[in-house]
Amino acid sequence: MSKQIETVSQWWRTIAAAADKHESLAAARDFGEGWSGLTAEPRGVDYIETYAGGVPAMWAIPKSGVTDRVLLCFHGGGFFSGSMYTHRKLFAHVAKAVGCRALILDYRYAPEHPYPAQLHDALGAYRWLLAQDILADHIAFMGDSAGGNLCITTLLLARAQGLPLPAAVMPISPWYDMEGIMDSLGANAGKDLLFTREWVSAIAAMYLGEKGDPRDPYANPLYADLQGLPPIYIQVGSEELLLDDSRVLAERASQAGVDVRIDIFPGMQHTFQMAAGRAPESDEALARYVAWVRPKLRME
Amino acid sequence: MSKQIETVSQWWRTIAAAADKHESLAAARDFGEGWSGLTAEPRGVDYIETYAGGVPAMWAIPKSGVTDRVLLCFHGGGFFSGSMYTHRKLFAHVAKAVGCRALILDYRYAPEHPYPAQLHDALGAYRWLLAQDILADHIAFMGDSAGGNLCITTLLLARAQGLPLPAAVMPISPWYDMEGIMDSLGANAGKDLLFTREWVSAIAAMYLGEKGDPRDPYANPLYADLQGLPPIYIQVGSEELLLDDSRVLAERASQAGVDVRIDIFPGMQHTFQMAAGRAPESDEALARYVAWVRPKLRME
Repeated sequence: MSKQIETVSQWWRTIAAAADKHESLAAARDFGEGWSGLTAEPRGVDYIETYAGGVPAMWAIPKSGVTDRVLLCFHGGGFFSGSMYTHRKLFAHVAKAVGCRALILDYRYAPEHPYPAQLHDALGAYRWLLAQDILADHIAFMGDSAGGNLCITTLLLARAQGLPLPAAVMPISPWYDMEGIMDSLGANAGKDLLFTREWVSAIAAMYLGEKGDPRDPYANPLYADLQGLPPIYIQVGSEELLLDDSRVLAERASQAGVDVRIDIFPGMQHTFQMAAGRAPESDEALARYVAWVRPKLRME
Repeated sequence: MSKQIETVSQWWRTIAAAADKHESLAAARDFGEGWSGLTAEPRGVDYIETYAGGVPAMWAIPKSGVTDRVLLCFHGGGFFSGSMYTHRKLFAHVAKAVGCRALILDYRYAPEHPYPAQLHDALGAYRWLLAQDILADHIAFMGDSAGGNLCITTLLLARAQGLPLPAAVMPISPWYDMEGIMDSLGANAGKDLLFTREWVSAIAAMYLGEKGDPRDPYANPLYADLQGLPPIYIQVGSEELLLDDSRVLAERASQAGVDVRIDIFPGMQHTFQMAAGRAPESDEALARYVAWVRPKLRME
C-alpha cells in the first residue's frame, strides 16, 4: 500500500469521528465537501456549470478530447451529501484520460427530497444529453457509492421508458442493498473505516423515506431484472462493508447474460479511487476503467 | 470569533507542524494544495484554463457578470507553493460579488525560477490582458501574501515600462519586507500560527536566489518610489508576523500621495479571507473589497 492511499483511510476516519458531532445536516454536508481534497487537480480541464434537464450539473471538458462522447457521472455521498464539486476532479481525471467530456450531476438530496427524486434527476439528465444529440452508444455512466446505485437504476428506468441505453456502465464501490442483508456488512465490520451496519441502515431509511420499499428494484437493483443491460464494470475494495453489493449485483447481471466485470482490490477502502493523481492504487484502478471504456465508446 | 474562522488557524497549525516533514518540495506543494479546502464553493462560476502571455492561468467566469472588467489575481504561497487551484474559489467569490471575471495566474515557482521570474510572469499577464482589449482602468489587481507583493511590484514595473496602470489594487496580507526587519516579526511571534522569523527569512532567500538584493524595489517595494500608483486597499490580520509590511507600505504610499486604505482585522490570522463562504469574518472582509473596488472599476 502506498503512503498516498492512506489519505483515503484517514479521510474516512475523520468523517466517521465527526459523524455525530455536526450541528446540522448542512454542517455535515459542508464538512463532507473536504472529500475533494483527496484528489489532485487533473489540470488542463475546464469546468462549466449548466442545467441538465433542469438539474444543476457541471461539464468537465478536457483541453484535448472529443465532444461527442460523454461520461454521465453520479457522485457518491449516501444521497444526502457529496456534490458535483466533491467529485469534479475524480471524474475529470477519467474524462481527461478517456479523451471525452464528463457531465457531473448535482442531483437533489435526501431526506429533503427522498427517492425517487435522485433517480428522476439522473434520468432527466440522460434524456437531456440525448436531446443534445449525443448518441446513446457514445455515453457511459459512471458513479461511486450512491452514484453507483444510480448508474444501474437509471439504466433500468431508461429501459422501462424505451430509451436507448448507454454503451457502458462503471459503478465504483456501489451501494445497492437497501435491506441491510449482505454478508459483508458483518464480515467487513471494523475493516471498513467509514461504514457501520447501523449507519448504512440509517442512510437507506433517509433515502427511501417513510413509504419507501427496500425491495423496490429502482432503489435496490438486486431485485431487478437485469437482462439486456449494457456492459458493466464494477470496482470495489476488499475491506468494504458494501463489498457484497458489488459481488451479488455482478453475479445477478452475469446470470442475466450481461457482460459484466468486477475487480476487487485487496486492502482497499470505499471509493479509494478518490486519491486519483496522488495514489498509484487509484490511478491504476482508473486506468483500467479507461482502457475498458474507450473501445465501448468506439474511441479506438 | 466565529467557529468557522477557526479553520484558518487550524490550517496554519497543520502547515506549520508538517513544514519540516515533507520528503520533497513537490510533496510540500502538494500538501499545500489543501489550502483550498478552507474556501466554500462560490457556485455559478465557470473555470477556463488559458495561457496569459505564455503563463498558465485560469479564468473564473461568474454566470452573471460583465466580461470587460477583470480582476488580475496573484495567489499566495511564498512564491514556492500555492496555485491557481488553491485560490480558485477565493478569487471566484470576489469576482462573483463584483460581477466581473477574474484571471488567476499560475506563475513560476521559486527556487527553480527565482526572482524576477514571477514578476515577469505577472507583468506578461497584465500586458496580455491589455492586448485582449481590456482597458487598464477596467482592471484591478488582487493578491494575497506573496501575491500581495506582486500586486505592487507589477505596478512598479508596468509604470517603468510606460504601461497604463490598473484602476485599483487589493493586497491581502501582503509580504514586502525581504530583509526581515519589521517590528511585527518580533511583536507577533507566537501569535501568528504560520510564520516564524526564520521561515520568512528562508522563503525570502529562496525567492531572491543567490544574487538577489533584499532592497531591490521590485522585490521589496518598501524601497520603491510609490508616487503615481493607483488606489490601494490593504487588508491584514492583527496577529500576523507580516503586519508591519502592510502598515509601512500603506504609510509610504500615503506619504507619496497615493489614495490608500488599510484595514487591520483584530484577532485575524494570515489570509483569513480564505474561509470565504464559510466564516462571516472572511465574507465581511471581502464584501469591503467589493464595495470599494466596484466604483473604481466604474461599475456603479
